[in-house]
Amino acid sequence: MSTEDIYLLYNPQSVAVIGASTTPLKGGYRILENLLENGFPPDKIYPVNPKMGTALGLEFYPSIEKIPHPVDTAIIFVPNTAIPEVLEQCIEKGIRGAIIQAAGFEEIGFNGLELKQKILKITNNFTKIRIVGPNCTGLTRVETDKTGFFSAFIRQFGYRRGNIGVISQSGMLNGGYFIYLSTRHGLKFRYIASIGNKMDLTENDFLEFFLRDPTVAIVACYLESFSDPRRFLALCKQANSIGKPVYLLRGGISRLGKKATRSHTGALAENSHLIRALIKQSHVIPATNFNQLFQFTQMRSLIIEAEDILPYNRNIAFITVSGGAGTIATDLIAKYQLNLPELENSTYQKMIDIYPDWMPPNHFSLLDIWPAVEKAKGNSNKVYEQVIDIILQDSKIEGLLISVFNIKEFPFNTRLLIKLHNRYHKPILAWVFGPASDISPVIQDLKDNCIPTFENLEEMVQNFASICTQKNFIQK
Amino acid sequence: MSTEDIYLLYNPQSVAVIGASTTPLKGGYRILENLLENGFPPDKIYPVNPKMGTALGLEFYPSIEKIPHPVDTAIIFVPNTAIPEVLEQCIEKGIRGAIIQAAGFEEIGFNGLELKQKILKITNNFTKIRIVGPNCTGLTRVETDKTGFFSAFIRQFGYRRGNIGVISQSGMLNGGYFIYLSTRHGLKFRYIASIGNKMDLTENDFLEFFLRDPTVAIVACYLESFSDPRRFLALCKQANSIGKPVYLLRGGISRLGKKATRSHTGALAENSHLIRALIKQSHVIPATNFNQLFQFTQMRSLIIEAEDILPYNRNIAFITVSGGAGTIATDLIAKYQLNLPELENSTYQKMIDIYPDWMPPNHFSLLDIWPAVEKAKGNSNKVYEQVIDIILQDSKIEGLLISVFNIKEFPFNTRLLIKLHNRYHKPILAWVFGPASDISPVIQDLKDNCIPTFENLEEMVQNFASICTQKNFIQK
Repeated sequence: MSTEDIYLLYNPQSVAVIGASTTPLKGGYRILENLLENGFPPDKIYPVNPKMGTALGLEFYPSIEKIPHPVDTAIIFVPNTAIPEVLEQCIEKGIRGAIIQAAGFEEIGFNGLELKQKILKITNNFTKIRIVGPNCTGLTRVETDKTGFFSAFIRQFGYRRGNIGVISQSGMLNGGYFIYLSTRHGLKFRYIASIGNKMDLTENDFLEFFLRDPTVAIVACYLESFSDPRRFLALCKQANSIGKPVYLLRGGISRLGKKATRSHTGALAENSHLIRALIKQSHVIPATNFNQLFQFTQMRSLIIEAEDILPYNRNIAFITVSGGAGTIATDLIAKYQLNLPELENSTYQKMIDIYPDWMPPNHFSLLDIWPAVEKAKGNSNKVYEQVIDIILQDSKIEGLLISVFNIKEFPFNTRLLIKLHNRYHKPILAWVFGPASDISPVIQDLKDNCIPTFENLEEMVQNFASICTQKNFIQK
Repeated sequence: MSTEDIYLLYNPQSVAVIGASTTPLKGGYRILENLLENGFPPDKIYPVNPKMGTALGLEFYPSIEKIPHPVDTAIIFVPNTAIPEVLEQCIEKGIRGAIIQAAGFEEIGFNGLELKQKILKITNNFTKIRIVGPNCTGLTRVETDKTGFFSAFIRQFGYRRGNIGVISQSGMLNGGYFIYLSTRHGLKFRYIASIGNKMDLTENDFLEFFLRDPTVAIVACYLESFSDPRRFLALCKQANSIGKPVYLLRGGISRLGKKATRSHTGALAENSHLIRALIKQSHVIPATNFNQLFQFTQMRSLIIEAEDILPYNRNIAFITVSGGAGTIATDLIAKYQLNLPELENSTYQKMIDIYPDWMPPNHFSLLDIWPAVEKAKGNSNKVYEQVIDIILQDSKIEGLLISVFNIKEFPFNTRLLIKLHNRYHKPILAWVFGPASDISPVIQDLKDNCIPTFENLEEMVQNFASICTQKNFIQK
């Protein structure tokens, strides 16, 4: 069963690093570093290199067979042509799973295909050993905010454990971009699978594993091809039925993009009409770039964590202190087919008391609170609290978009927003601006408390649209 | 002439602040603070309030007529109903320009329209005094990185002088968002005009002023209505002919958005077909949200500052260390109708030497340099330098998009990119990722040297498209 094989690959008790290096900046050294610094037990890491040596306190073995302990997983960092022989040795040693990072297979043409044939034969079609890759940065399992299993050839840090699973045909997503998303945007992952050319284990195997694992609540995919489109479709439908959303960035959709994938993961051209129809049926939510993929994913991840009620009628409210932002937000809300409904009568009556006579509130759910703040002699937080409390009680309103201007002299009270969010469990998305140094703590605080933040008004609106029952919300 | 009046409004030798306050967090106090802290001479600021008092070392005058000095500009921070009387006093005093921040005119209906009629009469249709606003945050002139003329009721800081002029019907753009753009994204402005309801001076007057001022190279507009569409069209054509690009975010384009503008700036519904046709003819570059407006503007501002040659045939190269990024970039390049042309033969011959035999370069201008970096034993900066130098010599290539992964262990050499940019003067746009703390200095350094940076691959591609001769580049 692939699921059990994948479990072992993510949770090895011992690893052999084939192609280990004693030179600090080389990949074969950094894999050791990445394992060690993220809490893998040093006595369960077995570096292998015929040249021998010591690195980071670990003594090298001259060959796989010389390792005097059982090995669960091999992380293989040797050139493509050496792979068949290494795999033979792994099988000999009884190793059940291998992560092959080398490139130079399907994507380089004939020589690469020959290598693939050899591997198929040696592994008896992967019945003797399971393979992640080749042409990948392997697997990551985040166990705590500081530990886990990290097999990539780049030192990973700055992450926190969350509920996101990633399946990627780009190694970057288990490398530099993982660090970027963690440290710059505070994304919290559970698993990453960099599947490369997916010679054996495919996106479907990992998706199935994520669907069965209760610690994964949401899946983000970057794919350049579908190994078995029908199985993908079936799994996505299953994901939908158990409430685990699947987000997809599809690479190689343009003529030239297809050419690019051929030299990247060796993906072959697919029937794009068929694929489009498939995606439409599958309930996956498409993204057009990496930022969007992970912005959607993070937002949804936080909403799931908060146990918010998902919107159904696309009815939201927008609260702002800027009339211009109100106008643009309204245009964008129309663009993404969301609604600013008429306020219920009781809601309107309560709002009227907060607004000054010279500028009563709108009858619909666009709430520019500036006049109310003037009436409250500048006490904006009091007005925010009243208006948010009233609007979230309106039974038509399914979620709130809010503009948050934070500056030292007039600090925005994040506590009140968090308190009201926890009371009503309707999704709240915040657009934050102000001096760079004053907004960073607000962004962090809100995200830590399941309120997704945005620095782009349009992205906030688009993200809200992406959690509504699926209508045509993505920009064309 | 409006142009001369506007010059005086931006460059007053003395200002009266009508409605000054001694209470630190009130607007009438903060205007004084904003003037003083940004270098306006204290002895040329005359606060007026019948209650008298002292604030920030400035003694208040009981009335305008009691100011014993000539006054160029009045900054008026009193409620709407007091405006007519204050204007009478300003005219009496011989003040030639007034910035009226109060709301409560056209946008509140009948009472507001009555006020407007009074003002028209008192000012004899603005022949006796020129007015910015009402319902605005006034004007900003950035003189140095620390000084200028700042009339908004929010303390402004963290800015630097640049070549961007802004015309806005949202006060936010001369308030909190100005600070956000300056401190978070490093935008460098020259002038901001928050024109509010534009009862007298309109977007056209300011646009004309910016076209005549040699220190302005580019104009960004946020408009909820056009005061005189034909004049706007003529000015934009003129702007185009002298090479000053005009960017436009139009608010109130949806049915509900129009409703929002009515209660914001009192803008009336316009014939949207006519307006769309007008924009099409005018060479203005449209944006769909505030971030995009200022991202386009900053990028173009840097390209102008660098004296880069503008692209004509939409031919670019993309350099990356990630195959996945290469694939997605290629799809996006197709989406925005840019081209990755075939390399010239001489270019290809030079590239071949840099790439390993097992993975030769593409014949077109998508350059995944990872195999070349492996051949160069990890010396990525050497490869970057060679590849960029070769590709920028290719006569077909009009600009470069590059992915920059920066991390302490493998620092990206910004100097080499800056050097090559200065040698060839083709626009270079960079997509930067890596650990948050490691990318901030790279972003700053590149922007300081006229290389626009992006954290979203799609935005980089879209921004490049926005500087190409106008074809259909904006996302629909």
